[in-house]
Amino acid sequence: MSDPAPDSVPDPTLPPAGSHAAYSYLGPAGTYTEAALRQVRAAEGAPWRSVNNIGEALADVLQGRSVAAMMAIENTVEGGVAAVLDLLAGTPDLRIVGEYLVPVRFALLARPGVALADVHTVVAHPVAHAQCRRWLHAHAPSHTQLPATSNVQAAQFLAEHDGDLADAAIAPPDVHDRFGLAVLADDIGDNPNAVTRFVLIARAGSHVPPPITGADKTSIVVDLPSDRPGALLALLEQFATRGVNLSLLQSRPIGDELGRYRFVIDLDGHVGDERVAEALLGVRRSSPRVLFLGSYPRADQRRVAVAEPHVDTVYAEARAWLASITAP
Amino acid sequence: MSDPAPDSVPDPTLPPAGSHAAYSYLGPAGTYTEAALRQVRAAEGAPWRSVNNIGEALADVLQGRSVAAMMAIENTVEGGVAAVLDLLAGTPDLRIVGEYLVPVRFALLARPGVALADVHTVVAHPVAHAQCRRWLHAHAPSHTQLPATSNVQAAQFLAEHDGDLADAAIAPPDVHDRFGLAVLADDIGDNPNAVTRFVLIARAGSHVPPPITGADKTSIVVDLPSDRPGALLALLEQFATRGVNLSLLQSRPIGDELGRYRFVIDLDGHVGDERVAEALLGVRRSSPRVLFLGSYPRADQRRVAVAEPHVDTVYAEARAWLASITAP
Amino acid sequence: MSDPAPDSVPDPTLPPAGSHAAYSYLGPAGTYTEAALRQVRAAEGAPWRSVNNIGEALADVLQGRSVAAMMAIENTVEGGVAAVLDLLAGTPDLRIVGEYLVPVRFALLARPGVALADVHTVVAHPVAHAQCRRWLHAHAPSHTQLPATSNVQAAQFLAEHDGDLADAAIAPPDVHDRFGLAVLADDIGDNPNAVTRFVLIARAGSHVPPPITGADKTSIVVDLPSDRPGALLALLEQFATRGVNLSLLQSRPIGDELGRYRFVIDLDGHVGDERVAEALLGVRRSSPRVLFLGSYPRADQRRVAVAEPHVDTVYAEARAWLASITAP
Amino acid sequence: MSDPAPDSVPDPTLPPAGSHAAYSYLGPAGTYTEAALRQVRAAEGAPWRSVNNIGEALADVLQGRSVAAMMAIENTVEGGVAAVLDLLAGTPDLRIVGEYLVPVRFALLARPGVALADVHTVVAHPVAHAQCRRWLHAHAPSHTQLPATSNVQAAQFLAEHDGDLADAAIAPPDVHDRFGLAVLADDIGDNPNAVTRFVLIARAGSHVPPPITGADKTSIVVDLPSDRPGALLALLEQFATRGVNLSLLQSRPIGDELGRYRFVIDLDGHVGDERVAEALLGVRRSSPRVLFLGSYPRADQRRVAVAEPHVDTVYAEARAWLASITAP
Repeated sequence: MSDPAPDSVPDPTLPPAGSHAAYSYLGPAGTYTEAALRQVRAAEGAPWRSVNNIGEALADVLQGRSVAAMMAIENTVEGGVAAVLDLLAGTPDLRIVGEYLVPVRFALLARPGVALADVHTVVAHPVAHAQCRRWLHAHAPSHTQLPATSNVQAAQFLAEHDGDLADAAIAPPDVHDRFGLAVLADDIGDNPNAVTRFVLIARAGSHVPPPITGADKTSIVVDLPSDRPGALLALLEQFATRGVNLSLLQSRPIGDELGRYRFVIDLDGHVGDERVAEALLGVRRSSPRVLFLGSYPRADQRRVAVAEPHVDTVYAEARAWLASITAP
Repeated sequence: MSDPAPDSVPDPTLPPAGSHAAYSYLGPAGTYTEAALRQVRAAEGAPWRSVNNIGEALADVLQGRSVAAMMAIENTVEGGVAAVLDLLAGTPDLRIVGEYLVPVRFALLARPGVALADVHTVVAHPVAHAQCRRWLHAHAPSHTQLPATSNVQAAQFLAEHDGDLADAAIAPPDVHDRFGLAVLADDIGDNPNAVTRFVLIARAGSHVPPPITGADKTSIVVDLPSDRPGALLALLEQFATRGVNLSLLQSRPIGDELGRYRFVIDLDGHVGDERVAEALLGVRRSSPRVLFLGSYPRADQRRVAVAEPHVDTVYAEARAWLASITAP
Repeated sequence: MSDPAPDSVPDPTLPPAGSHAAYSYLGPAGTYTEAALRQVRAAEGAPWRSVNNIGEALADVLQGRSVAAMMAIENTVEGGVAAVLDLLAGTPDLRIVGEYLVPVRFALLARPGVALADVHTVVAHPVAHAQCRRWLHAHAPSHTQLPATSNVQAAQFLAEHDGDLADAAIAPPDVHDRFGLAVLADDIGDNPNAVTRFVLIARAGSHVPPPITGADKTSIVVDLPSDRPGALLALLEQFATRGVNLSLLQSRPIGDELGRYRFVIDLDGHVGDERVAEALLGVRRSSPRVLFLGSYPRADQRRVAVAEPHVDTVYAEARAWLASITAP
Repeated sequence: MSDPAPDSVPDPTLPPAGSHAAYSYLGPAGTYTEAALRQVRAAEGAPWRSVNNIGEALADVLQGRSVAAMMAIENTVEGGVAAVLDLLAGTPDLRIVGEYLVPVRFALLARPGVALADVHTVVAHPVAHAQCRRWLHAHAPSHTQLPATSNVQAAQFLAEHDGDLADAAIAPPDVHDRFGLAVLADDIGDNPNAVTRFVLIARAGSHVPPPITGADKTSIVVDLPSDRPGALLALLEQFATRGVNLSLLQSRPIGDELGRYRFVIDLDGHVGDERVAEALLGVRRSSPRVLFLGSYPRADQRRVAVAEPHVDTVYAEARAWLASITAP
């Protein structure tokens, strides 16, 4: 493996891995998830396991078949990916160890000879379908959507089945060759800057958060107490009073009844930052359940801006002051 | 139409409809969406349009082909249904005019003669798939999911295609007869009390919110200003300071870049309640964009509890006091 | 009376006053209160009543002997003047109609021939005494304070009684001539920029607040509910959520038991400003008792800065939006 | 000294005192301050220094002439006693080591033969005068107040000077004998339950707060940053988010210009309670200046009620959780 580029995201501190430690990802080859995994230098040369669903990927990690698994966790259109968030929220022994961004682009592929006017059924991963909503509304307003399990599987499905099932597929443009398909329309996504955020997930085990870089992110899952009306307000104040900014706040139903929520939260900073540790302590004290998913370097490497009263030196100074009072 | 049961939810005040005014729902027949539509007394005897996707349903309403459309908006496992929330958030001229609850139940269906051990690919609507996660993890851990557009379409797909594509379908148990399928396992949902919440959507036009019943809900969509860190905190305070409780708070990405959010909010009360009107005014003043989706009777008919300082009479008294100061 | 200077504080809109309508102030002549009254153009040529205590001044107003009374309400050292604040808080039918600032300066006066070393007892108004604390601590550390009812009365008392009672007085330097006293030390105040804020108080009667000038102040008294721990926090949020800044927040005991408080509040803005009216309505709804003391032009004529979401046009726009929803 | 009564307030942990360590109080003998000092068992048999003003009392403590000084800090009518609060706020090296409550009662005393109708000038300590406001307004509406330095000094002054200066005095009823005065009217205070709160003040030196009793109070002084509008709101949130209740919140001007405030705060709990320590750290980090005045047993011995999330065991549990994350 080559030396890391000076300005690249640090490699995750993965649990000790043998020479054959594998990495799992949602296949088949060619998906954006695979593209994210290609950004992990530690994964170069290791075996890669293409799996069928994210539950299988997590099982690989928990049962030791893989050292880590790559998953899409947030995208420009869907926000937090519900199924992944819920799996993380429901599985205690996991850690996010790295974050990766992949620009996404969509094309409408069809079997050679099929025209846009002939398209009645479009096979597409639901997220990709959502990302192309405006284009589809304009060009194929009454199409039926046949969901696929991944963008690449959509193209593969179209190539392997005849026109009874589907007429076109939404897929990354560069896979059309591989399946002998034609590009009916390129760049059909609603947002030209669409990006998907991926995380690399390992087993918590004895995982220690990587060192503070100053450009870190921390992910947690917090169940709200159901019996307190201002519970979310109180939760947000735990962060606001410590100057901790949130970059993701995704409500997810706890699942037992309508109206009961947990929140998946990404916050700017590292559990080793005093303000973040304090906020996590405050959240832990007031919530029935908090799950720590990890502190890890941000993919965009943007340093976290911290206002004066919330920097570590101010915390240290305040503690010294308190000590001078209680044990002068 | 029979007289309404004395304790049933009031019928929505729909826009004037001719004798042939139609209702749209996500088909085919037998879906839970159809079951929800059966609860609408005004829809009895009217034509029902089974559509292929929710965009088509909304187009029916906006273009006058239907007087209203029924859609699933929240379920026990997924929370707010992302695609529906986003369509509502992006379509200005709509109103929610009624709310309906449908208990949901899932079975694993297969072609006769197929055993559980033979199941490798399961066709299922993504939400149904998510609701059966624990059962599937225990009984078919490495299955591939083939998404379907609805629970009924999953069964239909299984019945119409051979074993190359799928071995089993997740569907409501009572449709197995209709498609000649066997029930491999019943009640496979993770939550025996699972319920889906549906809303009936009409064109805003000159729609006036129905009268206050005391057991009402109001739905809005609020874009957060991107440049203010405590923006969500400030938004929630608009409700908290008026004693307005929220029953749904679902973050949705605005869609232009990662980290920009809007919130779909259901709040207890009616726009005609003073505290709700005040809160909406406060939200409107501080948000770049607020979309009013409607005030309507709650399906569960549970009366909204309002603390003393937030009842209408206290608002009236305070206004009288202010008037006595400014124009004695 | 000359034309008002274009940039002077507008004269208060006083209740209709006959040619002989009097003004009351805490005497004797020469006090800073009299200096404040000299700033009121409407009082030129009218009879001035010098009274012995502030209760008497308010009685003059309430019983119609005076059209208004001038009182010190806040000073650099004491903050809100407790006795005045409590009288205002306990007297429902009053209005503050004008605000005036008077710079204050203190000297130590003594009978001719007395040296600083001879000073054992200092007669002084408690507020003046407090304003000279540092000087006294340095130059007369073990003096006894004999309180006076006003700065001028201190000098008068010293002049009229022999050395058994007091050796020196704290008073405005320019009164020494009048009482035949010598200046032992001038400018003995701790703060060279000390200022006292006076208010002109009239009977509420049918008093209408003067027009909005854009540089206004509003004074209220709010009793906190005793049974709610976060009551003050909730009170302050009523102002914060409407962008209303407070320039005075003075706690005063309600007086029935320790720990029960009311707050005297000066806020930036006029009751005719929408954000102020809204905040007052919110406070009124959540407090057991609110007393409106008046909206009046600020003595410093500094215009109130209002952030975008809190200006009147935004209120009007939001109301129009709400109307379009409820009665389209 | 006798054994402490089992349910009495614990004696303060005073700095080591020699056998002749003195206690200072505002005299003369017979004042309520002396009555408060009589409640301190450690002061029995020690020399008591009667001083003329509170600055002198503090100087006694700072310069070692006394081991501690007793001062009135809050009363039912005036709230926090301004001069004492300001002296404490401006003197860094002090600690409140004990709290004492004294019920107060007022009578109108006069020289024998003087009738109520003859009373034109009343000599009274300003706080006592304020506590009898309603009675005086009813029975001597146009009297002149001649301030005294203490309640007892008022009676003494009346006894020692002739009728030219004063006709009556407000004083504790039981001092009339001592000065040969008659009781013109007893129980003239507005509030029959009036109580004054005293504190015993020692030098901070190496003073360690006394042990937690579960019925403790902590006093601090906090300067607000002048440049932040919501500064008080943010300050109060530091307490509210930790479930710390405030029993005194007294605004005091910082003294350099109008509108700049500090707050004297009494909070329920002991600096050794985790929630209190956390709140103090939060306040210290966000305020330009915090002065710790002491943690000490409450005079009323009422145990502090702490909600579940704020008890020490929950703090310990949260810290253990955080440790398990950062160093598993």
